[in-house]
Amino acid sequence: MTDKADPQDPRVSFQELKLLLKAILINNRTSSETADILAENCAGCERDNALSHGIFRMPGYVDSLRSGWVDGRAVPDIAQFGPSFIRIDARNGFAQRALASADQLIRRTVRETGIAIVAIRNSHHFSALWPDVEPFALAGYMAITAVNGLANVVPHGGRLAVYGTNPIAFAVPVHDAQPLVVDQATSVMANGEVRLHALANKPVPSGTGVDRDGNPTIDPHAILAGGALNTFGGYKGSSIALFVEILAGAVTGGQFSFENDFTGFPGAQTPKAGQLLIVIDPNCGGLTNFESRLALLCAQLVDAGQDRLPGARRFANRAAADQSGIPIALGELQRLRTLAGEGS
Amino acid sequence: MTDKADPQDPRVSFQELKLLLKAILINNRTSSETADILAENCAGCERDNALSHGIFRMPGYVDSLRSGWVDGRAVPDIAQFGPSFIRIDARNGFAQRALASADQLIRRTVRETGIAIVAIRNSHHFSALWPDVEPFALAGYMAITAVNGLANVVPHGGRLAVYGTNPIAFAVPVHDAQPLVVDQATSVMANGEVRLHALANKPVPSGTGVDRDGNPTIDPHAILAGGALNTFGGYKGSSIALFVEILAGAVTGGQFSFENDFTGFPGAQTPKAGQLLIVIDPNCGGLTNFESRLALLCAQLVDAGQDRLPGARRFANRAAADQSGIPIALGELQRLRTLAGEGS
Repeated sequence: MTDKADPQDPRVSFQELKLLLKAILINNRTSSETADILAENCAGCERDNALSHGIFRMPGYVDSLRSGWVDGRAVPDIAQFGPSFIRIDARNGFAQRALASADQLIRRTVRETGIAIVAIRNSHHFSALWPDVEPFALAGYMAITAVNGLANVVPHGGRLAVYGTNPIAFAVPVHDAQPLVVDQATSVMANGEVRLHALANKPVPSGTGVDRDGNPTIDPHAILAGGALNTFGGYKGSSIALFVEILAGAVTGGQFSFENDFTGFPGAQTPKAGQLLIVIDPNCGGLTNFESRLALLCAQLVDAGQDRLPGARRFANRAAADQSGIPIALGELQRLRTLAGEGS
Repeated sequence: MTDKADPQDPRVSFQELKLLLKAILINNRTSSETADILAENCAGCERDNALSHGIFRMPGYVDSLRSGWVDGRAVPDIAQFGPSFIRIDARNGFAQRALASADQLIRRTVRETGIAIVAIRNSHHFSALWPDVEPFALAGYMAITAVNGLANVVPHGGRLAVYGTNPIAFAVPVHDAQPLVVDQATSVMANGEVRLHALANKPVPSGTGVDRDGNPTIDPHAILAGGALNTFGGYKGSSIALFVEILAGAVTGGQFSFENDFTGFPGAQTPKAGQLLIVIDPNCGGLTNFESRLALLCAQLVDAGQDRLPGARRFANRAAADQSGIPIALGELQRLRTLAGEGS
């Protein structure tokens, strides 16, 4: 589902797209500061061809904001406990806003103590995780993050959804190269991908999920309509989903994926959950060679025949978009402009 | 490979087994302090029926110690950088000794700052990881650890071994119940399990690994003789193996799995690598309900039909062994006694 659009599609610049998305959010109960952060994030996903978290998500943002389920004007409450431990109450706003507001504190904490743990609760996350970790890798740090979500994944051997798609991501700097950035759902497939399959009426691969009765299905509509996804990698992948659920749903003091309840908020789509972030200075204590060590590891992976390093495709897509603009189908662009109130 | 031995087998107490194993290690170039730690660890694996890390490992310990590859008398060098950041140079000794020597410092660091990161380099790890995290969960903390090893796992899509079996483990306390303890290799199968299959001449499941030419095989001997294991869960599992390799092999300042070189040390088996440990006080900042939240999550997993919570089987095995002793085949017991110098 990552094929680029028609070569005849209009091309827009990153700035143009970002401003358009920002206008949509401001029109829909979001403060200018938070709209700026979310628009940058969403436009970045579209630019990098991470389409399941690109403009495809805008109606979900808008419907959730209009429903009152998420507060686009929330100002996060940031508190430091101990020299390396930061807790943030996002006050029912977006996790990205919470992270942005704490950014300077997080960076100072890592610089001064070698590690920062940031536990965000009462927050909504409706995007990819790589935008949350990549900046720290660009600053020379290793960043790890995990988010739980809306219960739509069955534990291995189970019948009912307990976990969200519970993504986990990490990023590290590499000498003389782009950072290594991994961002993956612990479900067999990301929920956004299932929704793209449903929109295209394309079946999902066997083993992806179950229907509302717990029977295996390749129908994306059945998975979305009361069914659930499987975790990746059998019981071991299920343990990683559990790991994320604990970090994001419990260590944060947030809520579990199965505790989301949209009743009373028609149109709500953004999962209210928690996010845990750990940022490590890998050279803390006088080491100097982390980035060159990572370059050696990457070279070994390439030698071993790994065809593509994690994150490489996104960086290539980004470079292409920076050169030629971001292709967006005319109909999509018109829909976005309508949402922004620019035309009918 | 976790079937208990013959009901007719002799039963030994945990203390009896531990003292026997300690004598073996002391007879083989290990200090009394380190022998005590490793014997407790290995006897604990046997007691919990985690047989791939039980007494089956003793010849490997002995051969490695005799070869001079690992230093059983090493005294670790512990240094604190920043309030929450601890680095340990194990000085070519065992990681378990490094952890034991730093135990009080780690606990004080978590208690006072809410988090401790412990980066161990220049260390050997030849056992399971659960013994390294379970004690912290029993003290009310969440502990996460990762170890790299000896290159015998191919990255997804690759042809050559880069990763070790790179296990990752975590443990959390649960109100009114045993801790939840996950400990799993990021390979499809743990190397110890492959060795047990080879000893029993039992084929491994399809998809477990490749032979020395990179072709898929179900012959455990072919995997051990220059072949390699696959990572679990396709490219997503491969990313988790990468995560472990970076944490244990690079953040620690240790060496990568593919940098092990046994040349000049005939008999050496213990992988010289690194270990990263993160211990978190999940109630840091005035929270009080982490353990009861975990109890809720566990109840939900049971409701969803998950047949067994991670770690539960080991705790059940332990209770049975505490009651009736640890069954060990007579031949095995005699071999251990010979190694300890008690018989012929």
